Amino acid sequence: MNDSEQSQTSEAEPGELGLVEWVDFVSEDTFDFENGGSIPGFTLRYETYGRLSESKDNAILICHALSGDQHAAGVYKLKDRKPGWWNNMIGPGKPFDTNRFFVIASNCLGGCQGSTGPGSINPETGEPFNLDFPVISILDMVRAQKRLIDHLGISKLYAVAGGSMGGMQVLQWMIEYPDMLDRALPMATTARQSAQAIAFNEVGRSAIVQDRDWHGGAYDPEAGPNVGLAVARMMAHITYLSEEGMEDKFGRARRTSEPSGAKGLFDVEFEVESYLRYQGASFVNRFDANTYLYFTKALDRFDLYKNGKLEESFKDVKAKTLVVGFTSDWLFPPQQNRDIVHALLRSGKIATYAEVSMSLGHDSFLVDAPELDALVRAFISQ
Amino acid sequence: MNDSEQSQTSEAEPGELGLVEWVDFVSEDTFDFENGGSIPGFTLRYETYGRLSESKDNAILICHALSGDQHAAGVYKLKDRKPGWWNNMIGPGKPFDTNRFFVIASNCLGGCQGSTGPGSINPETGEPFNLDFPVISILDMVRAQKRLIDHLGISKLYAVAGGSMGGMQVLQWMIEYPDMLDRALPMATTARQSAQAIAFNEVGRSAIVQDRDWHGGAYDPEAGPNVGLAVARMMAHITYLSEEGMEDKFGRARRTSEPSGAKGLFDVEFEVESYLRYQGASFVNRFDANTYLYFTKALDRFDLYKNGKLEESFKDVKAKTLVVGFTSDWLFPPQQNRDIVHALLRSGKIATYAEVSMSLGHDSFLVDAPELDALVRAFISQ
Repeated sequence: MNDSEQSQTSEAEPGELGLVEWVDFVSEDTFDFENGGSIPGFTLRYETYGRLSESKDNAILICHALSGDQHAAGVYKLKDRKPGWWNNMIGPGKPFDTNRFFVIASNCLGGCQGSTGPGSINPETGEPFNLDFPVISILDMVRAQKRLIDHLGISKLYAVAGGSMGGMQVLQWMIEYPDMLDRALPMATTARQSAQAIAFNEVGRSAIVQDRDWHGGAYDPEAGPNVGLAVARMMAHITYLSEEGMEDKFGRARRTSEPSGAKGLFDVEFEVESYLRYQGASFVNRFDANTYLYFTKALDRFDLYKNGKLEESFKDVKAKTLVVGFTSDWLFPPQQNRDIVHALLRSGKIATYAEVSMSLGHDSFLVDAPELDALVRAFISQ
Repeated sequence: MNDSEQSQTSEAEPGELGLVEWVDFVSEDTFDFENGGSIPGFTLRYETYGRLSESKDNAILICHALSGDQHAAGVYKLKDRKPGWWNNMIGPGKPFDTNRFFVIASNCLGGCQGSTGPGSINPETGEPFNLDFPVISILDMVRAQKRLIDHLGISKLYAVAGGSMGGMQVLQWMIEYPDMLDRALPMATTARQSAQAIAFNEVGRSAIVQDRDWHGGAYDPEAGPNVGLAVARMMAHITYLSEEGMEDKFGRARRTSEPSGAKGLFDVEFEVESYLRYQGASFVNRFDANTYLYFTKALDRFDLYKNGKLEESFKDVKAKTLVVGFTSDWLFPPQQNRDIVHALLRSGKIATYAEVSMSLGHDSFLVDAPELDALVRAFISQ
């Protein structure tokens, strides 16, 4: 185990976790994937924040979104420019209060931040899996997390929480392991991927697989399909924001004055262009194209409806559930979040829906906002 | 002049235009672009439907959207699979009734369907302009159309109509040539491009200019940046539809059953993917990447606000105006259309707004729908 808790206390600002470390959990048992194929074992890279109680009843599992990872809170080095992706939610005195809870975040199976994924070495060949990696589903991600939770000796999670693809994992936890969690907190998510969301993912995948540097997935990690991946990310990033949010943040603000000639016409002109290009370029530096392909497919195939009904999937659910939707989220709009709660209620479960008015679109769940903070704090404290 | 009217009458189905032909108008006078640069003359390819009255007072100019052209109605050959892009609106007995009106549609300056654009030969070099083509604006498109209207001997247009980029041209006509039109009918448009719309265009441009086959704009027309252009089109096509419309049309319908392995995982699986790929591939066959770049820049730079106010631009407008917005249009949402009308009204102009409830998104203006048909018919008949 890591000793991050010790370094935190000595280095952290008040109310902040400070320094954290990741740990690798290695499962040496064969893992069979939902849709066929298996691997002889896997690594999940994870982080923990706070202390596990003696009775092991205070653990909260955090599930990440498409481009997230195990680094949900704190910093690796004091000079890190940014803390983990949900640092506003996780820490001493925060909604996921590390003075009280033991918070666990792992990089999903199939990921590219240390967990086993398409870019990992296939022990049977000594080469990267690439497209030999089995098709991964949200259920596979959750089953791999279950092994980590077992390894930590936790028989029941206090809560499982996450937004977007993380919210899908929460729903899957509720269904697959109903006795293993007391509270479920899916946000900005859906019980089945919409046609529009599939369409956006397909454009991103098209940009990647048609990039000549993709090489059928067998690219050199140092020279991957960077153009395709950056274009995919730029486009996806728009879907994480909102028209109103973009208007407020960028409007028609210019980076340069209007060039008079056509030379340089397609360089950055508006601030929003600069922002998107930065998002694309920085994503390429931290993310693997094959993981992007596999994860978007997992999203697109996610569908908890059975014969048009969601209740059937929820029949064994035991967790108390709060679903949070965001008014300006048009990727997983409020209605898709409400539908989850309505199906839970129709199934006689304890569930409630909160809709937070924020203008920042799908990414609202990642933003520090008092209303969201209070909702999560109250639900987790119940 | 062409003799399309004759062939129409002999070949057409009742209520349809039937066979039409295009004509090239050549202006041999220097054309100076709004943002600098000039060309020694230009061609506009255009079509006309119906007959110009002796007093030349029955002409309606139709302006096309980003990917449209001069072929607004009728067919070139009887076996054409599709008629012109606004065939439901233009023809005998239709809202733009060719029994009564002389309807003109031209391919915009900068275009790639016969009008002079980046792909045309620069007479000074004998080579294609490519990026030596001056930066084009919506105002330039309108000024070029004005030369065509002058050439046809028309001193006042009965109406100017168009949607999307065509709607921007209508607004520009109202402002630039207030004495030259009696009625204006902009639809599904905006008086200034939003940050989100710029962002989507920038993703498309990024896909094109980073395609290795773009070659700084100097590509062989037979081997252009096809991947980039197809990706740009696929993405843009999503913005022309709506979440609801895509859900109704495609939902999660599959083209193939779920493949069990990762081989073929990124081939077409869902119907919506198949549809988008088809849209991308067919666009590449009919559209030029440099025109796409120039036109999207013209859209992004379009901004009729002066010091935050739109009224200033509208102060000399004389045309009666009907602006039509569509409830499900999220590219140029209803509010952006209403804003145009409100500014016209504040300026003391005759203007009204109609919002049509349709679930098909931005492309609603292109769809045959009784409510839209009736609105246009009534406005044009007034």
